[in-house]
Amino acid sequence: YTTSSDSASSAKLLFRQLFEKESSTYTYLLADVAHPDKPALLIDPVDKMVDRDISLVKELGLKLIYAMNTHVHADHITGTGLIKTKLPGVKSIISKASNSKADRLIEAGEKIHFGDLFLEVRATPGHTLGCVTYVTGDRPNQPQPRMAFTGDALLIRGCGRTDFQGGSSHQLYKSVHSQIFTLPKNTLIYPAHDYKGFSVSTVGEEMLYNPRLTKDEETFQNIMENLKLSYPKMIDIAVPANMVCGLQDLSERPVESVSN
Amino acid sequence: YTTSSDSASSAKLLFRQLFEKESSTYTYLLADVAHPDKPALLIDPVDKMVDRDISLVKELGLKLIYAMNTHVHADHITGTGLIKTKLPGVKSIISKASNSKADRLIEAGEKIHFGDLFLEVRATPGHTLGCVTYVTGDRPNQPQPRMAFTGDALLIRGCGRTDFQGGSSHQLYKSVHSQIFTLPKNTLIYPAHDYKGFSVSTVGEEMLYNPRLTKDEETFQNIMENLKLSYPKMIDIAVPANMVCGLQDLSERPVESVSN
Ligand SMILES: [Fe+2]
Ligand SMILES: [Fe+2]
Repeated sequence: YTTSSDSASSAKLLFRQLFEKESSTYTYLLADVAHPDKPALLIDPVDKMVDRDISLVKELGLKLIYAMNTHVHADHITGTGLIKTKLPGVKSIISKASNSKADRLIEAGEKIHFGDLFLEVRATPGHTLGCVTYVTGDRPNQPQPRMAFTGDALLIRGCGRTDFQGGSSHQLYKSVHSQIFTLPKNTLIYPAHDYKGFSVSTVGEEMLYNPRLTKDEETFQNIMENLKLSYPKMIDIAVPANMVCGLQDLSERPVESVSN
Repeated sequence: YTTSSDSASSAKLLFRQLFEKESSTYTYLLADVAHPDKPALLIDPVDKMVDRDISLVKELGLKLIYAMNTHVHADHITGTGLIKTKLPGVKSIISKASNSKADRLIEAGEKIHFGDLFLEVRATPGHTLGCVTYVTGDRPNQPQPRMAFTGDALLIRGCGRTDFQGGSSHQLYKSVHSQIFTLPKNTLIYPAHDYKGFSVSTVGEEMLYNPRLTKDEETFQNIMENLKLSYPKMIDIAVPANMVCGLQDLSERPVESVSN
């Protein structure tokens, strides 16, 4: 849907939440549809859903400029590289701390502009070393309430595991409390996954009802260290692929292997 | 999230889209959170997700007053009866034309009030004889853009099948064109299902890109008559159950069988 912001600037957010069932991954499409170019970005696209995402971008008359990730995913392959092959001009984005390749490597405090809208980058390590949260701006011409794309740092009534990829329950606790729970309580939480069919939450709701992050740090660490989760099925394929935009980055390998 | 409307009335919509993966069903929670009671309603709840839905209602401090269906579903069992056993005072709603039992049987043109907000009922038969679309009001104190809960009459880039339950491709074509495509183009379309991970569309988008309903009626009827869909797995269980609020309506059967 579209939300108009109540200021002098004519920025107008078009926002779509998209779902991939197998890995229960959310992809987000954001665009400034008041800008003549309708510049757009996709957060956490999934390789097998790229055709759906590109069709939607085209039908809505948007110009995709960024395909970005919140972190190096272990459970699915990112669509950023494939999108770049299909829509030349799109730039991939991931955090510098992820130690991955992309066109733009971002760090905490940076802004990612699309039209008159922008996302701020917050470092939220703990699920992985390079996790970031993208938050809509806090200026009067930016969407109200604010929106936080938390990746796997904060899930609705949950959080990402901390036992792989440089994860640390100590760091995750600190990240969520210092970087997410300090946002206004009505800030909308849009995670990278949901396994129970929730689509959105708020900072205020998670501060009250998140079963893990409402606990003190010691209890939280105890919970995280005793999850007894199985080894992620796709991690050995997905992580190396996602460190190069999902294998399909043309700069990384010859064209013949792109369709693999 | 919450959307404030820009008028004298202080009505403020809290809105949540909820998903059930097995049948790809969307359930919608709407509430007027500016009203002291925070009255709420659920559209198309699924039996196995009732505990999730009730927890969320309680955490958000809402008072659920209605549990309603867009139509008699053939692919899952409604949660309306089960919700009534768990939250006494909730009233079930379905269309009179569905020939089903419920506390309130609604017809085209009726309004369903919750706090200072309301939904209008539009008759949209064709997928089933009793299908309705619930549309937010067109007054200045109601949410902008408007929202249409279309059930299976109009899906995102699709529509419900018309070969069972009094379905008719002729009627469905007429319903969508006369009752949904006549709404403002920015009206948000919230369907009962999505199988590709889309969460929302607009009237304008479907008028341009719906692969079935953009066709002339004859082509549409041809498409619908040649879908060659298999017999719905759950229809023989779900339809009779859903005609009495999903089996679990206490007025219909003894308490012992409720947990079946
Ligand atoms: Fe992850
Ligand atoms: Fe249906």
